[in-house]
Amino acid sequence: MKSTEITIETGHRSVVADITDEVRSFCSGEGDGLVSVFVPHATAGIAIFETGAGSDVDVLNAIDDLLPRDGDRWRHEHGTPGHGRDHVLPAFVAPSITIPVIDGQPQLGTWQSVVLIDTNVDNQSRRIRLSFIAG
Amino acid sequence: MKSTEITIETGHRSVVADITDEVRSFCSGEGDGLVSVFVPHATAGIAIFETGAGSDVDVLNAIDDLLPRDGDRWRHEHGTPGHGRDHVLPAFVAPSITIPVIDGQPQLGTWQSVVLIDTNVDNQSRRIRLSFIAG
Amino acid sequence: MKSTEITIETGHRSVVADITDEVRSFCSGEGDGLVSVFVPHATAGIAIFETGAGSDVDVLNAIDDLLPRDGDRWRHEHGTPGHGRDHVLPAFVAPSITIPVIDGQPQLGTWQSVVLIDTNVDNQSRRIRLSFIAG
Repeated sequence: MKSTEITIETGHRSVVADITDEVRSFCSGEGDGLVSVFVPHATAGIAIFETGAGSDVDVLNAIDDLLPRDGDRWRHEHGTPGHGRDHVLPAFVAPSITIPVIDGQPQLGTWQSVVLIDTNVDNQSRRIRLSFIAG
Repeated sequence: MKSTEITIETGHRSVVADITDEVRSFCSGEGDGLVSVFVPHATAGIAIFETGAGSDVDVLNAIDDLLPRDGDRWRHEHGTPGHGRDHVLPAFVAPSITIPVIDGQPQLGTWQSVVLIDTNVDNQSRRIRLSFIAG
Repeated sequence: MKSTEITIETGHRSVVADITDEVRSFCSGEGDGLVSVFVPHATAGIAIFETGAGSDVDVLNAIDDLLPRDGDRWRHEHGTPGHGRDHVLPAFVAPSITIPVIDGQPQLGTWQSVVLIDTNVDNQSRRIRLSFIAG
């Protein structure tokens, strides 16, 4: 299995970071198989949706709506106020996704991008593990 | 890797389309491995739950509750009013799931069905990629 | 593919059951590949987050907030009142996750645990299928 970690700078605010190019580069030259995109952090998730037309902000707003950054609501109290919310996020936006690959090309649809969702404001960089398993 | 695309007619309304039979047929005759079910569209998700006892409607209602089709709420403004919501859906109901397969049989529980969730009313057919990776 | 089922006692209440040790043991001695964690029940999900610092309860509370155990809300009416909610859960917390494995070690981050989320109070034990596919 080919596997590597990349690092994404996310800064000190909630972000949707588009990593589609990184996933495509990683798969380039491989044959058929599955690519696993996995973030080894407990306050982030991996998703696939259309970026660049407003949905990045829409998704972050929906997360704030559904899982408010209200310190009183959460038992988990480490870090910056609201950090308890970040620890609930991965139950709903999982840190792992797999994508089929054919002839080195991830089989994403035209409007699909692979993103890291990181609402954690305490860490400014995040690692992501990409793994290709040939089939 | 064996991989193919199937097409599902979803019409112009929100649907839960049961694709369990298609997944079973696809795996039939294979050995042990993983089957990847992936929808290459940015406004749909893949899920596994019990169909036929009311939960199909319950899941669609829950989506409407949690991510309302309220045009003013979403920045993404292409398509029919409410379409912005459809673009947020895959962050919460991912377009990808993998299922273990033994002797050509997906190891679903008795009450589990594989479904496409498509709340997009603008497209009446959806493609789904099925891929089997032997292990 | 190496594949086995384990059984977890969950009792008659909502639980987050940490199965990280079971996943690690299962992968131990294997090489590189992907481990699939799959629960073959229609009222449970698999997630990865930090356990032991309050988020277990936070996640269960968030589920109760977002998908209330209100019998009138759900069409699915089998089982104990509120059971309809349990059948909606897996659409949002999927019953399947894959984790990259290197040299027999699941590549979880320091604060990540693999958990079964089971809000079903009618069944006191749950099976989980672990499968390792070498890459």
